[in-house]
This record gives sequence, C-alpha cells and structure tokens, in this order.
Amino acid sequence: MATNDIREYVETLAREAREAAPRVAAVPAADRGKALLAFADRLAGSTKALLKANAGDLKAASKAGENEAFLDRLAWDDRRISGMANGVREVAALPDPIGEVIEAWTRPNGIRIEKVRVPLGVVAVIYESRPNVTAEAAALCLRAGNVSILRGGSESIRSNRALAALWEEAFAPFPSLSGAVRLVDKTSREAVGALLKQDRFVDLVVPRGGESLIRRVVEESTIPVIKHAKGVCHAYLHKGADYAMAERIVVNGKVQRPGVCNALEKVLVDADVAAKVLPPLCAKLKSLGVELRGDEAACALVPSMKPASPEDWDAEYLALVLAVKVVPGLEAAVEHIRAHGSGHSEVIVTSDAAAAETFCRAVDAAAVFWNASTRLHDGGQFGMGAEIGISTDKIHARGPMGVKELTTYKFIVRGTGQIREEGRFMNRPYNPFAFSTRAAVSWR
Amino acid sequence: MATNDIREYVETLAREAREAAPRVAAVPAADRGKALLAFADRLAGSTKALLKANAGDLKAASKAGENEAFLDRLAWDDRRISGMANGVREVAALPDPIGEVIEAWTRPNGIRIEKVRVPLGVVAVIYESRPNVTAEAAALCLRAGNVSILRGGSESIRSNRALAALWEEAFAPFPSLSGAVRLVDKTSREAVGALLKQDRFVDLVVPRGGESLIRRVVEESTIPVIKHAKGVCHAYLHKGADYAMAERIVVNGKVQRPGVCNALEKVLVDADVAAKVLPPLCAKLKSLGVELRGDEAACALVPSMKPASPEDWDAEYLALVLAVKVVPGLEAAVEHIRAHGSGHSEVIVTSDAAAAETFCRAVDAAAVFWNASTRLHDGGQFGMGAEIGISTDKIHARGPMGVKELTTYKFIVRGTGQIREEGRFMNRPYNPFAFSTRAAVSWR
Repeated sequence: MATNDIREYVETLAREAREAAPRVAAVPAADRGKALLAFADRLAGSTKALLKANAGDLKAASKAGENEAFLDRLAWDDRRISGMANGVREVAALPDPIGEVIEAWTRPNGIRIEKVRVPLGVVAVIYESRPNVTAEAAALCLRAGNVSILRGGSESIRSNRALAALWEEAFAPFPSLSGAVRLVDKTSREAVGALLKQDRFVDLVVPRGGESLIRRVVEESTIPVIKHAKGVCHAYLHKGADYAMAERIVVNGKVQRPGVCNALEKVLVDADVAAKVLPPLCAKLKSLGVELRGDEAACALVPSMKPASPEDWDAEYLALVLAVKVVPGLEAAVEHIRAHGSGHSEVIVTSDAAAAETFCRAVDAAAVFWNASTRLHDGGQFGMGAEIGISTDKIHARGPMGVKELTTYKFIVRGTGQIREEGRFMNRPYNPFAFSTRAAVSWR
Repeated sequence: MATNDIREYVETLAREAREAAPRVAAVPAADRGKALLAFADRLAGSTKALLKANAGDLKAASKAGENEAFLDRLAWDDRRISGMANGVREVAALPDPIGEVIEAWTRPNGIRIEKVRVPLGVVAVIYESRPNVTAEAAALCLRAGNVSILRGGSESIRSNRALAALWEEAFAPFPSLSGAVRLVDKTSREAVGALLKQDRFVDLVVPRGGESLIRRVVEESTIPVIKHAKGVCHAYLHKGADYAMAERIVVNGKVQRPGVCNALEKVLVDADVAAKVLPPLCAKLKSLGVELRGDEAACALVPSMKPASPEDWDAEYLALVLAVKVVPGLEAAVEHIRAHGSGHSEVIVTSDAAAAETFCRAVDAAAVFWNASTRLHDGGQFGMGAEIGISTDKIHARGPMGVKELTTYKFIVRGTGQIREEGRFMNRPYNPFAFSTRAAVSWR
C-alpha cells in the first residue's frame, strides 16, 4: 500500500478514535465492566479460532526463520488463552477510576473547585512480540474509559485481528462502545510512523518492546510517550546485610525470570564484607547457571569470575549473567547507581536502618527497596492491579502503570457569577499595548 | 559559533545539570526557601543594574525594528522588577512539596510501600519575550527541588544574564545550590534544537511562547513536553442563563485582558434566547471596543456584526475580537466545543443545574466553569500559588501548573527479606527459551 494511503488510513483511524472518545468516556462503569467480562468469555469460548489464527502467524514466522524464543513469545496454547481471559476478568473487577473527586475546595470569592478524574481519551499502544497485549492493554485502557489504538507486531497480525474481532463482538450489546478498541491493520512500518504524528487525536503513546522500538517512538512521536526503556537494577549489599537475606534477594532477582525488566543485573558489595559474602554468593549463583563478571576486587576474591568490561556496568543482560562490583561504602554505591542505574528498581540489603534510609532517600529510581527483592516491582505485587507496563519516566506515571495512570483530571468550577477582579499582576493597570494593537479600551 | 560547538556546549550544560540534580534535591526545604528570599532581595536591590542590562536589550530590539507591543513585553521598570521580587517571595512562602508521603500501604506479604513526592530533577524552560520568566519559572522549579535550565528569547539575553548572575549570588551561602539555575547563554537557534535532544539529562521541557515555538518544541523534543498551545475559550449562554450574569462573565472574559490564554474567544447562545440576549450583549461589547463576528443567525439579530468565516471558529484572536454563534441547544453547544475548543477553559451560564452538570461532565477541557469567568483559570485564583503556565495537555499536569506539578514520585518499599514467590503469569512454569539462549536452569 502506498505511503500516502497508509498515512490517510492511520489519520482516519485516529480521527475516528478521537470522535468516539467522548461517547466511550460517557459509558457507565458497570457497562464497561460487563463488556470486559463479555470479552473474557469470548476469549475463553473461542480457543479453537484463536489457535487457528495464531497457527497462521507461527507458520509464517517459522518460514521467515525466526528462532525458538521468538516463536515462544508468539505462540498461544489453551493455558495462555485462559490466562488472557483471567487477566481481563481481573481488570473487569478493578475499581473504576472515572469521576473520582480527587480534591475539592472553595475559594474566598465563593467558587467551588473540584479536581475530577477523567479518561485520557485516546491511548495508542505500540508493541512487539506478544499478541496478548491486544487483550490486556486494551482491557486496561477500557477500564479507564479510553479508546485504545493498538499496533502490534506484524508477526502477530492474524492473532491480533482475531482478538480485535472478539472485542467488537463483546461490544455488540453496548453500541456506545463500538470502536473502543481499534487495531491498526497495516503491517507496514510506515503505519507506526504515521501513528506517532497523530497528536491532534491521540493523547498518549505507550510503546512496549525492545530498545530500538522505544527509541524510535521517543524520537518520532509528537504525542506524549510514557515508556520504560531499560531495567539495569542493582542490589547493594551493605556491610550491615544479613547474608541469608542477601542471598535470597539476589538469587530471586537474577534467576527467577532473567528476561524481565525488574530482574537484577548488578550486585554491589561493601569492601568490608566482600571477602565473607562474595565466595558463597557466587558459588550459589554459579550453581544456578549464572555467568558472573566482576571488577578487579571481585575477581580477586572469586577467581572463577570473568573480568567485567566498562560496558558491563550499563548492560541489561536479560539473561543469566550478573556483574559484581566491590564498593568502598554507601556513598560509592549510590554514586555508582546514579551513574549506571536506569531509574527502574534498586535494592539495599542491610540491618542498618540509618544506612537504608540514606540509600532510599538518595537513590532516584521508580522503586527503591530496603530488604526486599526487585522482582516485587510489579503492579500486581504492589496491589495496584494489572499494569500496562512499568514506567521509568518521571512524567505522569512512574513505576507500575495501571488503570489510574491511564486517566487524567479536569477542574470543574461552580460559581454564582464570579469574575476576575483584577489582572494577574496585582498592582499593574491594564496596558493595551501589551496585548493588542487595536482600539484602546477603558480598564475594567 | 559552529553548530558542533553549540551542541557540545548544550550537552555539557545539560549533563552538569543532571549531575547537580541529586545534591540540589537533597538541600533542605528551609535552605531553598532562604535562597529564594535572597534572590528576591537581590532583585529588589539591583534595580539599577537590571535596568541597565534591560536598556541594552531594548536598544538592540528597537534598532532591529521591533514594534511597541514587543518592546513593552521586553521592558522592565521599577514596578515590574519589584513585581518580580514579590512573585519570588510568594513562591518562597509556598509549602514545600518534597518528601510528602502521597500514599502508604502494607501488602499481605508484609512489605510496606510508600509513594513519596520527589523533584523531577532537571527542568528546561524555553521561552520568548518576557525575561521575567528567568526569575519566576526558575523560582518555581527550585521550590520543587529541581535544577532548571533556562533558554529565553535572544532579544532578552542581557536581561537574562543579569538575572542568572543574581541567582548565583543568592546561592553563595548554599554551596549545594550552586548551578541550580542555568542559563543557556547562546542566542543561536541551534541551541534550542540541541537542548531538545538532551533526554538523557533533562526530565521535562516547558515551552512558553507563541504557536510556532510550541510546535517546534513538540516536533523536535525527545524530552517529555508539557505545554499549552491555544486558548480558544467558549462561553455557552444556555436558555436558562441570567442575562446580567452572562454579560458580566462575557465582558470579563473578553475585555479584561484579551491577550492571555484564558481570555474568551467565542460565545454560543441558545436559539431560544438569542433574540433577547444578543442585541444588548453585543451593544455592550461594541461599546468596549470589541469587534464582533457572527454566524448567519447572529448577524441577522445584530446587523452590525461582521459575518464570521469558517476559520473564525478555531481562531485565537488574543485581541478585542469575539465570534458569536447561535446554537439549537446544549448538545449542539457541546458538539461545537468538542470540534473547536482547545481544551483550555469552557463556560456555561445557566440557572438550570441539570444542564450545567451535563455540560461540565461532557466537555473535556482543563477547566470547565459553571457561572464563573474563564479569567479565573489561573494558579493564583485557584489557590495553588504561582504557576509556570497553564497546561492543555492531559499528561502529568492539566490546567494551572504549579510547584506540585514540577515534582514526580517514587516508591519506597521496606521489607524484611520478601522475595517474589511466583512468576507473573501465576500458573505458568518458567520457560528458559522465552528469555535466554544460555544454559537452561532449574525452576526456582
């Protein structure tokens, strides 16, 4: 399809999403919940059709020479489909955020101001690999009263289309929800570029995928972006650390699911205790298949460790690899994290409360942990319900990004005829030249 | 200066700002308050030097052929300087937001989670015309614990340099605050372009100026942007409106300060009352020097009105011009505002509470008013203290953007050794192929 046609297609889709947003926002919470449950039921009841569509994607991907890991991320089975359905049911059960009066107050002149929670409007999700996002992210957006525009990976186009069709079926009893979930049904790369320029119609873009996708979105988008780029997470074993606790936390962080963003990538150990801590810790990690890389001091203590290169300190391995560094103390640990952390999740293990508080105050990351695993950095674990992702940004949402983070607010001001009594600069008479070259008017 | 040199200058400035951010964030609230007061005192005490610098800018601008309005926005006098100082004193008196525990809760596994307010880090403000921003915006950023990077208009470079010098003088007793306010001291346009790419070091960009500056920033920035683009504000005079109140609100909105973003630009009148309302209202506006443009129905009722063209409905006049339209009723008014409003400030005047609530719920703008003037859409008027601007974005900040909106939050999690008990997909065993091509490991 020609570039211009794709651009037109995307712009039309975005414009129609914007036009649908007010009526979707006005749908009562109960109906949105029912629609979510209807979609979950359809998921559970359409296993055959979904697997068929998915098989088509798998066949094409296989033919294109994709590897096992790629195919595994793409593949559905009965359990994954019912997992999707259950995930959507969980979202349906979440409290509805729309209409919440966040704050209310009355001003001296009598106007009453309310800060009210409202949907963002139109949220675009651009993702790779996992067609589940077409169910999960759309469900979260809908719970928050938004229209969602989904652009998945081209490798899952059949799977995504099948899910999009189920959404429309689920919306059938709720005409106002028709079109609340829209799939960008073009596999061309240009479709993404075109979508990223629709800032007149789209309120937020959430990219989910590898570094190059995230980078592209950040560079090209004129729509606000909330992202998580990297998870270079550190565990700092302070001299006051309990060894058993430290080992539990490090092993849980590195080994449980190495490929996720909250997996531990680096361990910093106080020089005072390194000789005591590193040998047993590294032996344990090695026995679990972890490749260790260390700075000079760490390698001296654990000779089987590979020497780390400068790039190791910024690397996100997403694999059973861990870099280890010996540090002089708390200040050095904090400095290292400031220089190399990605603002995701950082841990201190210690029984020294003062050291812990200093660390927690000084380290600037989405989540800072004292004596707990980075693997707890998760919307579900935090009790926030499902999340659309973990943001390492500081704007609008930081950390787990759930339903609430897919909303914004507006001010509703109720008065009895109040007007502005004077100009913004309290003692400054109105100067017509500052604002207008038209006829001067009397000050009012 | 060569382009590469400018880019290097800007990148170094941004990197050093990022490096300064943690120590600025750690400065106690009381000291930041004292520094703000010290700056205010220096402002008040350096009138002569400031006027001299400003005179240099005025001379250059005059020579370059700039008009009266431009010179007026640029010019300082005793009163404007003391106004700046008082504004900074007001900011110094605002409650400090840093460290606030926004929310706290304990999870079933015993971890205690706190959502704590922290500075954004590094905030860049890019502005035109008013050198006051170098004082006001920097003050707000500092009250919120941030480092600010200021890039003013090239026409005010001397004035801005003078203010930047005063900031450093004010910081002298507080070494940790050195460099908390940085001026991009290059007038070349490329400096802005280079600054907009510093997303590794800058957390937020706030552009303040005309449409083309805002557009450029949105297009080029890889840093999150919060902006207000246009203020196309409507007053909808419902059939239940009290005429005297309607007239007060319309006149206040259009005439008091036509050049600001919360000025009224359009009036929509219910057909049922147009014949009664429009003639006296338009006569009043005309007597105050307002040029009126109307749709066919309005022009039929008020023949002296000029016919409006299609562009009028989207135009932000920032002058004594007002467009008037007769609408069939509430639904049509809402539809018109949805199509032409800029998400800034929208008013309904009526004594019909049900109509008012429908309007307030349906209209999506930063602030929606019932029986109150759009001119009240202001941080000071809302009781939020000073503002860095009014955001029409929906991300992070909407409406008046004050000190709180220049912060973000982080999660602090305190545990007793808790780890993640199972993978994110509750019933899904660990699949090594999904994440790693390295040695398979036993599920843990």
